Amino acid sequence: MPSADPSDPAAFDVGLLSPATVGRDGVVGDSAVLRAIVEVELAYLRVLEDAGIAPAGSTSAARTAAGSAVFDAADIAGRSDLGGNPVIPLLSRLRAGLPADVAVWVHRGTTSQDVLDTALMLTAHRARAAVIASLDATADSLAGLADRHRGTPAAARTLTQHSTPTTWGLRFATWFAAVQDARDVLAAVRLPAQLGGASGTLAALVELSDPATAVRLPALFAAELDLDGSHSWHTSRAPVTRLGGALTEVTDALGTIAADVATMSRTEIGELAEPEVPGRGGSSAMPQKRNPVLSVLIRSTALRAPGLLSTLHACAASAVDERPDGAWHAEWPTLRELLRLALGASGLAAELTAGLTVDADKARANLAITGDGILAERVALSGTAGDPAGYTGASNELIDAILSRRSR
Amino acid sequence: MPSADPSDPAAFDVGLLSPATVGRDGVVGDSAVLRAIVEVELAYLRVLEDAGIAPAGSTSAARTAAGSAVFDAADIAGRSDLGGNPVIPLLSRLRAGLPADVAVWVHRGTTSQDVLDTALMLTAHRARAAVIASLDATADSLAGLADRHRGTPAAARTLTQHSTPTTWGLRFATWFAAVQDARDVLAAVRLPAQLGGASGTLAALVELSDPATAVRLPALFAAELDLDGSHSWHTSRAPVTRLGGALTEVTDALGTIAADVATMSRTEIGELAEPEVPGRGGSSAMPQKRNPVLSVLIRSTALRAPGLLSTLHACAASAVDERPDGAWHAEWPTLRELLRLALGASGLAAELTAGLTVDADKARANLAITGDGILAERVALSGTAGDPAGYTGASNELIDAILSRRSR
Amino acid sequence: MPSADPSDPAAFDVGLLSPATVGRDGVVGDSAVLRAIVEVELAYLRVLEDAGIAPAGSTSAARTAAGSAVFDAADIAGRSDLGGNPVIPLLSRLRAGLPADVAVWVHRGTTSQDVLDTALMLTAHRARAAVIASLDATADSLAGLADRHRGTPAAARTLTQHSTPTTWGLRFATWFAAVQDARDVLAAVRLPAQLGGASGTLAALVELSDPATAVRLPALFAAELDLDGSHSWHTSRAPVTRLGGALTEVTDALGTIAADVATMSRTEIGELAEPEVPGRGGSSAMPQKRNPVLSVLIRSTALRAPGLLSTLHACAASAVDERPDGAWHAEWPTLRELLRLALGASGLAAELTAGLTVDADKARANLAITGDGILAERVALSGTAGDPAGYTGASNELIDAILSRRSR
Amino acid sequence: MPSADPSDPAAFDVGLLSPATVGRDGVVGDSAVLRAIVEVELAYLRVLEDAGIAPAGSTSAARTAAGSAVFDAADIAGRSDLGGNPVIPLLSRLRAGLPADVAVWVHRGTTSQDVLDTALMLTAHRARAAVIASLDATADSLAGLADRHRGTPAAARTLTQHSTPTTWGLRFATWFAAVQDARDVLAAVRLPAQLGGASGTLAALVELSDPATAVRLPALFAAELDLDGSHSWHTSRAPVTRLGGALTEVTDALGTIAADVATMSRTEIGELAEPEVPGRGGSSAMPQKRNPVLSVLIRSTALRAPGLLSTLHACAASAVDERPDGAWHAEWPTLRELLRLALGASGLAAELTAGLTVDADKARANLAITGDGILAERVALSGTAGDPAGYTGASNELIDAILSRRSR
Repeated sequence: MPSADPSDPAAFDVGLLSPATVGRDGVVGDSAVLRAIVEVELAYLRVLEDAGIAPAGSTSAARTAAGSAVFDAADIAGRSDLGGNPVIPLLSRLRAGLPADVAVWVHRGTTSQDVLDTALMLTAHRARAAVIASLDATADSLAGLADRHRGTPAAARTLTQHSTPTTWGLRFATWFAAVQDARDVLAAVRLPAQLGGASGTLAALVELSDPATAVRLPALFAAELDLDGSHSWHTSRAPVTRLGGALTEVTDALGTIAADVATMSRTEIGELAEPEVPGRGGSSAMPQKRNPVLSVLIRSTALRAPGLLSTLHACAASAVDERPDGAWHAEWPTLRELLRLALGASGLAAELTAGLTVDADKARANLAITGDGILAERVALSGTAGDPAGYTGASNELIDAILSRRSR
Repeated sequence: MPSADPSDPAAFDVGLLSPATVGRDGVVGDSAVLRAIVEVELAYLRVLEDAGIAPAGSTSAARTAAGSAVFDAADIAGRSDLGGNPVIPLLSRLRAGLPADVAVWVHRGTTSQDVLDTALMLTAHRARAAVIASLDATADSLAGLADRHRGTPAAARTLTQHSTPTTWGLRFATWFAAVQDARDVLAAVRLPAQLGGASGTLAALVELSDPATAVRLPALFAAELDLDGSHSWHTSRAPVTRLGGALTEVTDALGTIAADVATMSRTEIGELAEPEVPGRGGSSAMPQKRNPVLSVLIRSTALRAPGLLSTLHACAASAVDERPDGAWHAEWPTLRELLRLALGASGLAAELTAGLTVDADKARANLAITGDGILAERVALSGTAGDPAGYTGASNELIDAILSRRSR
Repeated sequence: MPSADPSDPAAFDVGLLSPATVGRDGVVGDSAVLRAIVEVELAYLRVLEDAGIAPAGSTSAARTAAGSAVFDAADIAGRSDLGGNPVIPLLSRLRAGLPADVAVWVHRGTTSQDVLDTALMLTAHRARAAVIASLDATADSLAGLADRHRGTPAAARTLTQHSTPTTWGLRFATWFAAVQDARDVLAAVRLPAQLGGASGTLAALVELSDPATAVRLPALFAAELDLDGSHSWHTSRAPVTRLGGALTEVTDALGTIAADVATMSRTEIGELAEPEVPGRGGSSAMPQKRNPVLSVLIRSTALRAPGLLSTLHACAASAVDERPDGAWHAEWPTLRELLRLALGASGLAAELTAGLTVDADKARANLAITGDGILAERVALSGTAGDPAGYTGASNELIDAILSRRSR
Repeated sequence: MPSADPSDPAAFDVGLLSPATVGRDGVVGDSAVLRAIVEVELAYLRVLEDAGIAPAGSTSAARTAAGSAVFDAADIAGRSDLGGNPVIPLLSRLRAGLPADVAVWVHRGTTSQDVLDTALMLTAHRARAAVIASLDATADSLAGLADRHRGTPAAARTLTQHSTPTTWGLRFATWFAAVQDARDVLAAVRLPAQLGGASGTLAALVELSDPATAVRLPALFAAELDLDGSHSWHTSRAPVTRLGGALTEVTDALGTIAADVATMSRTEIGELAEPEVPGRGGSSAMPQKRNPVLSVLIRSTALRAPGLLSTLHACAASAVDERPDGAWHAEWPTLRELLRLALGASGLAAELTAGLTVDADKARANLAITGDGILAERVALSGTAGDPAGYTGASNELIDAILSRRSR
């Protein structure tokens, strides 16, 4: 049999089965998460040091040692089943590279869940910035299209059938509004750091300092990482489900657009065309064929997100005790996959909308198919039909109103 | 065979398979929705009349006629498959009871989706008020419990095993915070009216008035019904998914509490007991048995909500064209069921928390099971163990901080 | 405000929000389930009597009394939250109408879960027969269409774009095969009765007879109801998830067909048309419009089923102890809704396929749009294009092979 | 900042966030899938050659060349977004290493979907063998436990409360039956090869041979790969959803067991203990703590599977045209993740059940907590209580019946 790269253990995922996200998801991969875990441990040490709990210089020493260390993600992953999470083996490796008097302060007073929850929120924080940048680019393109196509009439369709006329401008404005809205909701999601200690009581930190000091540390820890402050949410998982909901709103909004582009670029309809890119849209059997691949891939993300979100909620609803027995563990890969889908979908959407073209002649020809039928409502109201392009209602005023709400 | 009530067609659902919600969901049943549809049509007519489009007196005449009419929900439901939604047959019935010169103005310029989306938001608006009232009562009870049990030590558990000590006060405060948070998010969800006309262009309203008038009507329509204003969201379904997400947060938060109560009232653990109600908790086989039925039923709602939410998102991601070909139709019963689950769960939770009792002696006895083991963290930090009740960290300060954020 | 029928409590569901299922789901409504519960109790009494445990004549007396009783489903539902399920209040009502010496034997030795699980399987058994009848009618129609349209060439589409030619005959045959396959899988699902007693040990039945007798009773009980025999599955819920999976396969298969019909009847494509029925397909705003309502409603069921199936699996995975704390309760309405969706979808599909029409001229005209492009594969293989209708491969042989596998 | 292994691109997943599956999923990783794709192409070429379509010797030449080639999975993944799937870039690489007269025959007459669907089924075939081996080991262990603990009485629990007595033997037998059942269903799932050509008509194969030859090739192709034969299922995705359903049944069955083990090993209950493994069960904050990590990780897989299964069904219900516009693409990573979860869960379960221990004294002590209360049913039936261990019904006979159905 042919061999694959022998340095690539068989179980690694490099994105082979996820063309929608490959190359757009580096910020959430295992190495990125591993780095985030290390950063969180260092930030926590900084907080201990600043509070006078850990000795001065600990953080600097740890940072230097960690900076020159190479952490083998696969090795750490491979040891994660012993304690049930990757923080425990990472800590062993991290401490092994430090002087004993520094090592003892690393992670002291916190717990795996504090570190991993915070590291995932830090990862989400970075992924969100990338998603928002792509959504902003998408919104800009759609706003431009909306403005340019105010005067491009088209058939509106309800339940797949021509209903009354509309314009491509209003359709693009509607897409713009959905993207903008999803972007604003995502931007507003709070991404809290987590710091409660073994059971959420901050007992170890109180032991190392006093109650008044201890209760100040969560906010300082969050600030150190540019995350939101919060009381401990070990078993109150709304921060996770809300983030998941906002990410799914992103794939919902982009998925609807993608489904519309795919339909509107059907051979018989032909009102839209994806940007041409050499090699894009090819088929293994039919080399001449040009498929709306960007839309197809975006739509694949939108089909995948809802099931993942349901998992996050199922976990949230089973977050028992002071740390649950599996519901926490099921969240990590699920949330990360939702981040990956939003990264992929938004990146593809930015590319799609940047080069999307409208065939105005085809739109007008399609509009003519049903003749006066598409004006039946108007005839019922006023007795006359006229040019379909003249029955587009308040589409321009609506475009103006929508575009005026641009969030930047 | 025994017969059931012959006036009760076999297909009717009266809540037989949903003990968690029966008797708490009247505000979202089919008759309530039907009434909401009628109210929406009347409110729309009022807007037309106020704008000088419909003749003065139309609304008053229609309201009088509708007020004395009896709409047979089953008959209307039975005709809904012809057009695919219940608005069409309801309109026939509604218009049939009106003078022709009023009937012609009913629904004129709007579309089924405007009416049904708005009616469901109106229904949601009413259901939300009931859910919030129950959540407020629940939060009040939990705040009281948190305050009363500051000094009730208990074992914290992580991954099912004793970890370090905590207090029942902090645990109740944590539950309080989750309930409060879910309540605030639900209260903040925008519930927009829908008004776009056949294809979202307001074309018929422009035909009946002018663009400047037409674009003002959606906000007036929303105000008439005490709903939020919005541009048309025929295919941008975030209002539905966000509401669904907030309702699922409610069942998540209550489901976690219920799972904890069920576990903590296990025969061997016995730290909590549900309120005693004659007849509550009985078994058909074991008459002496007392089951934590409230918790069990709440938990059943929390298990059901995530799948329903995933359906709403799957629909949102397929909301193509100007009105989708099935994705819209799949939303209605799904959103209604989520409203019903939140109504049931919150009502049950109010009852549960109002009478929840703590067995402080049993909690202390359980805490003693692991002896000094539960203080291993403290020993590692300071070399001494002491009384477990003395290692509850900043639990009181945390309770204070959490309770200070009460939203009312 | 207008009133709804005052005898119709607000919370009742009469199908107003589910046009896809209304009028097709009587066999699974609350009254049907209630009757099934009574039948199960009577069948169990018959088994006790036949085994010499209950006195001769008990069943006959109970059947007579139950036959003349009217059980108020709403009243029983309203009392179901006390014990957490409807069997307990139904039993009170049932026993109240019986002589004391008969009443004592009703339900003796069994438990609510035995009765309710069995009653739901009995309900499923009846619903399945109706679903299969509709699927058979659908398959017959599709087989006829496949045969009649062997010579109707059409463009195949992949990723929405014309790929190579095919025939409507092969497409119908493919749909036929999917329907047939889903039907056969559904028909093969085992629907077991449940009989384990309070904790699955048959202890009460052993107490009333002896171990050898007791272990024979579950099979006799199943036979009495024409259900499958099984050891107790109180917490092994594969019978429920498998049934749910098979029902979802039904909506999947029909949903794909419906999505294809909706697309192929788009105004611009126009290769298919739903059967014309007076009043069907109407719009509240555009009276002339003819929507593919059957397809739209079928598709709405296919969008709803997957989330419900995920709930059944989430429950199965949490079926702890000898009877779980909510996971069992969440199954009932979920499974019933899946039965309802399959009833609705299959009934609509039978109606759809019975009258579906093909516009062969339009199909050929669409095929011509891409000219020789649609034959690029053939040109690459053999250098020549020719008539697209001549490049339909083995479509006839494939139709023959598929149709030869008709299961009846 | 510390760096991770620089040869490890950030986006790679090495299992860091999935302790439940890491190290058990090599058979389904990207390299394994990539190898399967190459194998499928070679098997197809073999079929062409055997049918006299491709020249003699083609397969041998291709196999030799492919055997010495190294395919860079990351490079191929990175190019997969152009055509939307990884087969297209893999083909370029594969053909590049072959003589032109061989290269031209590779993939000729088939299409990406044929290759990728078949490669995923081949991957599933291999993963299934591993899952079944682990399930068999698990079933063996459970059968042994059932037999050994026939005489170990314990409290049965329903709705979390003691109900009547049972035995650990019957409980293990019940688990055995669920595992055995899930195993048999998984083993029976058909895993078909896919061969339909560009649009499912086998047109290219007819062009290269004749209809009679072409229609024989799918079965020969399947046989070459030891997969099941089938007519083309490009848009009839039941093979995928059924496999997904069977895999989810595996995680359901194991998840319920895991939840029970986690509960029964609670500090206060203590009837079960996971096998002791040095390092297993550790905590980062509480070094003395021993967590039921195997159960926790198994349960995490059971929480994740249902949402993924719902995605497969949502895709199946949207499999339009001759190849869908995203629904196919969303299946691949979802199905692979379900395979991974079943591999992880079954491997962990084999380890768990091999070393699971029962504390019979603690079980008996727990049974005594409710005193005669646990015998209330018996007292109601016969007036006397007696030793709880004497009221275990037909548990031995039920164990015998269950164990007699061992499938091997």
